[in-house]
Amino acid sequence: MRSDLNNLRGKLRTEMPVTRHMGIRVVRQQGGGVLLRAPLAANVNHKGTAFAGSLNATATLAGWCTVWLLLREHNIDGHCVIQDSSVRYARPVCSDFEARVEAPAEDVLTRFFHSIRRRGRGRIELSVTVADRRGVAVHFRGRYVVGTDPGVARDT
Amino acid sequence: MRSDLNNLRGKLRTEMPVTRHMGIRVVRQQGGGVLLRAPLAANVNHKGTAFAGSLNATATLAGWCTVWLLLREHNIDGHCVIQDSSVRYARPVCSDFEARVEAPAEDVLTRFFHSIRRRGRGRIELSVTVADRRGVAVHFRGRYVVGTDPGVARDT
Repeated sequence: MRSDLNNLRGKLRTEMPVTRHMGIRVVRQQGGGVLLRAPLAANVNHKGTAFAGSLNATATLAGWCTVWLLLREHNIDGHCVIQDSSVRYARPVCSDFEARVEAPAEDVLTRFFHSIRRRGRGRIELSVTVADRRGVAVHFRGRYVVGTDPGVARDT
Repeated sequence: MRSDLNNLRGKLRTEMPVTRHMGIRVVRQQGGGVLLRAPLAANVNHKGTAFAGSLNATATLAGWCTVWLLLREHNIDGHCVIQDSSVRYARPVCSDFEARVEAPAEDVLTRFFHSIRRRGRGRIELSVTVADRRGVAVHFRGRYVVGTDPGVARDT
């Protein structure tokens, strides 16, 4: 699990340059989700608070990282894209911030992996909150689609 | 109008560093909206397509820039934040991309400015599309809230 996390960190650093510019760090996995952290300074807007686009990007990435790690843990060679998302910015983010993915329910995960193994394709909706030092400020939901690469062993 | 555009460009460059890292440029106003452009290279993901978070950030910013310019044109000293948004990523973005704001309907604009002048606060929903060289790939809707700063002259 630790090496999956390190592989993920390396992937972001080398293959997604914008995450480096935003200072986004994969902190740890917790409860089935992922925790990302980013500094205010690199993502600040003209009001001295965090740019909404950076908050959304961090939440989007947190969901994607969670799916990426889930696939590795289940030994599935698949790719993941986000299909759609919605977000509510409840108040400005005034300090460094964290994006935290809520752990998907067990039956959601079961259906997700069953679909991938049966049909080579699965979809999962993830909830992400973004918090600064005062607490949760942003509520995000994103739907992620996974497709397995050709030649992957399946159980069908 | 040209000087408003240049002021906006300067504001992004100096006060929102992440827009510089993403290479986002304010190209021009058109039909009541704003056109932004960004390079794939600065926003690329591990698949060689544009990171969804960058696409969302560019669309979010395009809406915000549109409201910022509308306020200047109407001589309103107000600040604008995004309240919520939703986005659908219809397909991957495979080249440099543009975010284009649809011009709001005339009656929508009338209600928006009326509310700001009467109550010091207004809300407007904007549609933004993001396109690469093959056409539109992302559909975004965002609601932006404007509040006037204390001491601003109003017509009430």
